[in-house]
Amino acid sequence: MPEPAAASRGVFVVLEGGDGAGKSTQQRLLADWLAESGAEVVLTREPGGTPLGEQIRALLLHGDHVAARAEALLFAADRAHHVETVVRPALERGAVVVQDRYLDSSVAYQGAGRDLAADDVRRLSLWATHDLRPDLTVLLDVPPQVGAERRGGVHDRLEREGADFHERVRRGFLDLAEAEAHRYLVVDASLPADEIAGIVRERVAPLVGGAS
Amino acid sequence: MPEPAAASRGVFVVLEGGDGAGKSTQQRLLADWLAESGAEVVLTREPGGTPLGEQIRALLLHGDHVAARAEALLFAADRAHHVETVVRPALERGAVVVQDRYLDSSVAYQGAGRDLAADDVRRLSLWATHDLRPDLTVLLDVPPQVGAERRGGVHDRLEREGADFHERVRRGFLDLAEAEAHRYLVVDASLPADEIAGIVRERVAPLVGGAS
Repeated sequence: MPEPAAASRGVFVVLEGGDGAGKSTQQRLLADWLAESGAEVVLTREPGGTPLGEQIRALLLHGDHVAARAEALLFAADRAHHVETVVRPALERGAVVVQDRYLDSSVAYQGAGRDLAADDVRRLSLWATHDLRPDLTVLLDVPPQVGAERRGGVHDRLEREGADFHERVRRGFLDLAEAEAHRYLVVDASLPADEIAGIVRERVAPLVGGAS
Repeated sequence: MPEPAAASRGVFVVLEGGDGAGKSTQQRLLADWLAESGAEVVLTREPGGTPLGEQIRALLLHGDHVAARAEALLFAADRAHHVETVVRPALERGAVVVQDRYLDSSVAYQGAGRDLAADDVRRLSLWATHDLRPDLTVLLDVPPQVGAERRGGVHDRLEREGADFHERVRRGFLDLAEAEAHRYLVVDASLPADEIAGIVRERVAPLVGGAS
């Protein structure tokens, strides 16, 4: 089977970070700013982002025990379908895709957090997506304690894990950002939301051909 | 994470073949015969075989378009969960597991049938299961035309594929059986059911320590 072309005209920006880091707020603020410039903006998320993906998301986040490798494979399945049916078509149209969570979440959560080999988890996702990587990953870095307070009383299955788990996930994200610093922006998520939004805009502007 | 032990006390028998080959009939006949000997017999199937797996099965067989790699990953996720929660525990108890479809179905259907690399599909399943392989695979080989007639009017998403697809799947199964002949029994599925059952019992008997 021919591999999908790696090149695309659009821009793929991903927001990553622990639960409660403020990803969805920053996603909306960035999208609003991009839309003002007249660009086509696609807001999406993983897991989920497609009808099939929403069903997979429900299995993952609100189901009972899921075997560790099954969990990794379900996230990868969601990603394969989402990239093929939503993300690649959008990038090929020239859109800016602003996505809540992608490959790094799998590596950080299943790899660092779940005792699976991080390399195995990364390999699954790269196979699933024909090696599609973001142009920019914004890591909203927040100490787990702050994240827990922001989340308040609502917890899904992954969020109920202990503080130690969330610290390992945070460390996993930071390691990924250090390893490929050129395609990451790491922001202190305890800053005010509008200040974070400004930092993000400044970094995204040259990618979309505009000024911040 | 420590790998699950490869050794187990039980026996793992898998029935494979195209749709309409008579797998579920032979599964029941074999299980009835094994149960007479006093062995613990576990009848199970993939996709499905667990509550999570039944939900995945529903996504796979009755859903809308599923991206090719997403489909392969969903089958592997089902398999990972099923093996960890059903098959390995049964084998460790010393049971005989008689299963409808396993790894070879993925290779034959997604690999031969779906334009994915067969090696990729096999690698996914072996990772999913920590390399668990059947002690015996019974391939019920049936020309696609015969299978289609036996299935009658009920068709799921995979069964609606054309005759050419089913012929590629059949060829995929036969290639797998040829490559590892020592752990395969290939039976002409157009024989009468009780004759097939006798052939299967004869091959299974020494594995379970009995006479046919």
